[in-house]
Amino acid sequence: MTREAGRRDRLRAVAAEAGLDAVLVTNLLNVRYLTGFTGSNGALLLRTDGADLFGTDGRYTTQAGTQVPDVELLVDRATTAALAAEAVRRGSGRIGYESHDVTVDGLRGLERVLTDAAGGSRVAELVSVRRAVEALRAVKDDAEVEALRRACAVADRALAELAAEGALRPGRSELEVGRELDARMLTLGAEAPSFETIVAAGANSAIPHHRPDATVLRDGDFLKLDFGATVDGYHSDMTRTLVLGHAADWQREVYELVAASQAAGRAALAVGADVTAVDAASRDVIVAAGHGDHFTHGLGHGVGLEIHEAPGISAAGAGTLSAGMAVTVEPGVYLPGHGGVRIEDTLVVTDDEPELLTLTSKELLVL
Amino acid sequence: MTREAGRRDRLRAVAAEAGLDAVLVTNLLNVRYLTGFTGSNGALLLRTDGADLFGTDGRYTTQAGTQVPDVELLVDRATTAALAAEAVRRGSGRIGYESHDVTVDGLRGLERVLTDAAGGSRVAELVSVRRAVEALRAVKDDAEVEALRRACAVADRALAELAAEGALRPGRSELEVGRELDARMLTLGAEAPSFETIVAAGANSAIPHHRPDATVLRDGDFLKLDFGATVDGYHSDMTRTLVLGHAADWQREVYELVAASQAAGRAALAVGADVTAVDAASRDVIVAAGHGDHFTHGLGHGVGLEIHEAPGISAAGAGTLSAGMAVTVEPGVYLPGHGGVRIEDTLVVTDDEPELLTLTSKELLVL
Repeated sequence: MTREAGRRDRLRAVAAEAGLDAVLVTNLLNVRYLTGFTGSNGALLLRTDGADLFGTDGRYTTQAGTQVPDVELLVDRATTAALAAEAVRRGSGRIGYESHDVTVDGLRGLERVLTDAAGGSRVAELVSVRRAVEALRAVKDDAEVEALRRACAVADRALAELAAEGALRPGRSELEVGRELDARMLTLGAEAPSFETIVAAGANSAIPHHRPDATVLRDGDFLKLDFGATVDGYHSDMTRTLVLGHAADWQREVYELVAASQAAGRAALAVGADVTAVDAASRDVIVAAGHGDHFTHGLGHGVGLEIHEAPGISAAGAGTLSAGMAVTVEPGVYLPGHGGVRIEDTLVVTDDEPELLTLTSKELLVL
Repeated sequence: MTREAGRRDRLRAVAAEAGLDAVLVTNLLNVRYLTGFTGSNGALLLRTDGADLFGTDGRYTTQAGTQVPDVELLVDRATTAALAAEAVRRGSGRIGYESHDVTVDGLRGLERVLTDAAGGSRVAELVSVRRAVEALRAVKDDAEVEALRRACAVADRALAELAAEGALRPGRSELEVGRELDARMLTLGAEAPSFETIVAAGANSAIPHHRPDATVLRDGDFLKLDFGATVDGYHSDMTRTLVLGHAADWQREVYELVAASQAAGRAALAVGADVTAVDAASRDVIVAAGHGDHFTHGLGHGVGLEIHEAPGISAAGAGTLSAGMAVTVEPGVYLPGHGGVRIEDTLVVTDDEPELLTLTSKELLVL
């Protein structure tokens, strides 16, 4: 049995439990997770009786045959509608759908199809399955963790190479550094950067999500780099903050504070830990130092086929950690107009210590 | 008045015409188009009385101040809900929303907010505006055309440099070539590739959307490259098919056929032309040569903030071309198991000849 077939069976159990005859999976990443299909248009009709159907359009007939050999294929330009009609024809009465993914227009289209397929009398019912697949995705299997390891290794190495080559030096612009980091990750085997790379120098480092611009790196600046690589569809996420030239005392102080907070957050990653407690473990360190107001975002988030996925780790979050969850721990202290520090790792929760995937040193680097 | 303010006024006229008090714009690209905001979370409450409100969360307060200085700012983590509540508080009764963008869960959330904001009695009504902003976006202004020119120039130059350096030669893999093309576009100033670059060698060139893999380029192969660069958010899209080493007669024949079809498609791009007629002008050339069944997709599509946007140019399309529309013309002939050719340009429709943005030669290149 393929990994994907095992995942479909886990969703099938959830669907049967909810009294559904079928689930129409339309979120493309969920489809990829359940089938292995990587094209830009595909949907899965998962049926509790086991007779699943994978739909795509003519562009992907060959690719579907290779990537999804173990699921019956339906090729139709109106992929989702065709799968829904087929579900009715095969007698599904209660059909689950992803109400967080299907748009209002999409739902109306599906309802029309169900009515038409039933010859005028509506026989099938659409029921939201909420984020059932995302809940499965939160816990990674070995192959997924291995993809995350490789994604993190590409980011680690790209940064190490650029630092060794002297690319992170006064006189260069944020944009230049960001583009080099992106290009180096591609050269090292990334499919793409995980997200828009953040390069923030000097006062810009106080902006949590600063977009790199023409700002030139200067001696004595904080340089905050938040970036990641995508490998086999899996994302890495790492932030390092370093200092150019010479670190002032206030910079060392803020850095040590964030490093201590980040270590506390990592130490709190344990099976069964409540996400709010993990956030608090890290945040309390910063609050105790009087900088609570300067840590303006949640502590972390799940990482996988999406750069942000379940579980969210914040004071407003809910739920507990399980073994196999891949998450970030990324506290920050931002002093508007002066500068800021964020330190972020990607880790996997295990029954033992969490496994650290982003291996770049967290000692304050002065370049 | 900024370009964005002018666009908001055009949408305002559409909204007033539809009897709406406000429009809640949630599609992030539409928000960017109407405000200039480039962050990952933002929404616009456009009001027919002119008192607009831009919403984002705390990460983007600074960025919003810089990018959207002329619209009142509302900072709230639950951005869309906060804007909707504010709309009700300010007396909007009929509120337009984007039913092709808002999910089923999203609509339920909005309905809850409206009811709560009205103190239990529902006073506001949500009305779909369909793709009103996308319809505006289909016609580009001068600044948008300039961004498209630069995006196309980056792609042109990346390919020219790689060809000149001998990077496209037997012995290299599709993946290597694809990554080099992507990295070179970044070095030349692209923010990102426009989409997953297609590199298809030999028989793979017969797969319209082949994903680059470890396949090694061989002497006598077709090499099909479909790629583009993103500059200032605008996408370029170009396909060139070349031959490695020596072109066989059948390759020259297929190539000349597609080139003739593509020229006919370009020649048909005129203000007022029906998109089905443009598709037919190009397709008829291929059908007449007996290869109609080997041209399995539409002729082209609009390009802008999205790689695929309005107008669609295909036999199933609807509507006519206007001056300022940026579109692709990309016929192909695919011979399964043997190889295929696609030739694609990005052009802008004008009152005169269409302006060609992708300037790489379309003579059959034998490397």
